[in-house]
Amino acid sequence: MYNDHIIIDGLQYCHWDRPYFKRLQASGITAVHATMVYHEDARQTLTRFGEWNRLFEQHADLIMPVRCADDIKIAKATHKVGIFLGAQNCSPIDDEIDLIAIMRQQGLLIMQLTYNNQSLLATGCYEQEDNGVTRFGKQAIAEMNRVGMIIDMSHSAERSTLEAIDVSSRPICISHANPSFAHSARRNKSNQVIRSLARRKGLIGFSLYPFHLPNGSQCRLDDFCRMVATTAEMVGVEHLGIGSDLCLNQPQSVLEWMRNGRWSKTMDYGEGNSNNSGWPESLAWFNDQHGMENIYQGLIKHGFNDTETAQILGGNWFNFLQQGLVPIAH
Amino acid sequence: MYNDHIIIDGLQYCHWDRPYFKRLQASGITAVHATMVYHEDARQTLTRFGEWNRLFEQHADLIMPVRCADDIKIAKATHKVGIFLGAQNCSPIDDEIDLIAIMRQQGLLIMQLTYNNQSLLATGCYEQEDNGVTRFGKQAIAEMNRVGMIIDMSHSAERSTLEAIDVSSRPICISHANPSFAHSARRNKSNQVIRSLARRKGLIGFSLYPFHLPNGSQCRLDDFCRMVATTAEMVGVEHLGIGSDLCLNQPQSVLEWMRNGRWSKTMDYGEGNSNNSGWPESLAWFNDQHGMENIYQGLIKHGFNDTETAQILGGNWFNFLQQGLVPIAH
Repeated sequence: MYNDHIIIDGLQYCHWDRPYFKRLQASGITAVHATMVYHEDARQTLTRFGEWNRLFEQHADLIMPVRCADDIKIAKATHKVGIFLGAQNCSPIDDEIDLIAIMRQQGLLIMQLTYNNQSLLATGCYEQEDNGVTRFGKQAIAEMNRVGMIIDMSHSAERSTLEAIDVSSRPICISHANPSFAHSARRNKSNQVIRSLARRKGLIGFSLYPFHLPNGSQCRLDDFCRMVATTAEMVGVEHLGIGSDLCLNQPQSVLEWMRNGRWSKTMDYGEGNSNNSGWPESLAWFNDQHGMENIYQGLIKHGFNDTETAQILGGNWFNFLQQGLVPIAH
Repeated sequence: MYNDHIIIDGLQYCHWDRPYFKRLQASGITAVHATMVYHEDARQTLTRFGEWNRLFEQHADLIMPVRCADDIKIAKATHKVGIFLGAQNCSPIDDEIDLIAIMRQQGLLIMQLTYNNQSLLATGCYEQEDNGVTRFGKQAIAEMNRVGMIIDMSHSAERSTLEAIDVSSRPICISHANPSFAHSARRNKSNQVIRSLARRKGLIGFSLYPFHLPNGSQCRLDDFCRMVATTAEMVGVEHLGIGSDLCLNQPQSVLEWMRNGRWSKTMDYGEGNSNNSGWPESLAWFNDQHGMENIYQGLIKHGFNDTETAQILGGNWFNFLQQGLVPIAH
């Protein structure tokens, strides 16, 4: 049964307010990886932490911070939604290796090495050239490994992603992307990446963002489940999760911040274009609180048993976090 | 016996390196309140945290971070020196109330509301006018109370200090200053302040900085102990500690940073003057690793028993921290 299980959404960036927290609670989702920053630098990231601290204070009856995997069990037991914070870019550490430990201490559990563009650490998936993990990037991966901050390569380019998987002493994740075989897109991942990730015990979270799906907003639940099933055949069930990339109730200005940050004077449309510059239309079967449960039922219908479905909907994320968040003892 | 007890120095700002940590360990001091910043803003404070994290990593055989009072017991049991970090000014929180919780989470256990000058929170002891605790200051005190960050008024002006004692729901400290009755100086505290502090279960740490002492660098151990004894008669032994203000192996540039920060174009000499602009000559009985033990022996000679002396040399600081560092449960 869906409600018996730990359900984890491996990436959302919604407008976080009380009505949405209530919806999350009603959805049966146990924990959410919430994007805290896109392009915010270290100083601005502190302000975002402050905003989250207030949300945790003001809505303590609905949500709770997740600082280790066991907190997700507490969230389940107390019928709250656990929130674990992540960064979609390495901007929170500025150019300082020591800020990794500081941000981890503050509660930043997951960080992407790059967001679409070249960063100080690696190359993003929208660059023409991919030079792989940089000198600073190798140091940062080792430090993230040490302190138990999870490496996420969702928005990174192919070579950088393969190198990060290889350089990292611990499994990494692609929190929200789909296999390119299901839909060809710069943000989606090759079979080589997915196999390499799985071989090193990593995790990929399937995205529900229409730009990452076959037929975009018209993608059917059945198509989605077939993509999951094919990937499971390729690498096994235990490396699969959900990272919906759900961005609800956000204005156009947020989309523009995601895409343009402070780096572009001309408008960059990301996965859209000048004629299609807004948020994509959401999926009919994933646009209300029943979205995750719909996927559960869809996967069952596709031949996964309850245990496997529960793994994909949260169990694998839980195990991955349980191992990945523990600092390496010296 | 001196070595049986928990010995705490309630303020130092030395040049923190391996030779000095070894000296600290040899001194029998269990824990030190180390000043981390003077005028550094939030962003710069992160860099200081990073530097301390490296020191804790590199010298883990000699020192350990203190995040709660029990860590001091661990330091004692493992023959390490516990370090608890503090700020001499409210600059680490910029103008954001939410940064108090963030800095506390990062390990900033003690913060002064002001350093000599007017701050956003209160008035410093070198200002002509003292308007007391500001609007932001009242909010900050309540938030510091909530998260268990200790309020320190060592460098604050009279009215501001009295108001902070009164406004705070928890005891506050004057980590390093002396009674004005022993030596009149802007940095020293009136009997009214000391009585008011003690009435609210606060703590004052006696300073060994020559500018705060009768006869400056020529102050004798006997004079120091008499000052302690007189204060004990006035408010009782349990409100007294040591906050040596020891600043060893620091260049003149550090003294100038302390005094001038970024606020002065003309040189400000603080407690010195243009003819006496350097670090004061240190006290003969407090210039090596035996300083704290010398005070122990001096207080015993002055009629304090072992229990009382141990309270003054660390027990009172321990109890104060044990109560003050616990966040208020909601």
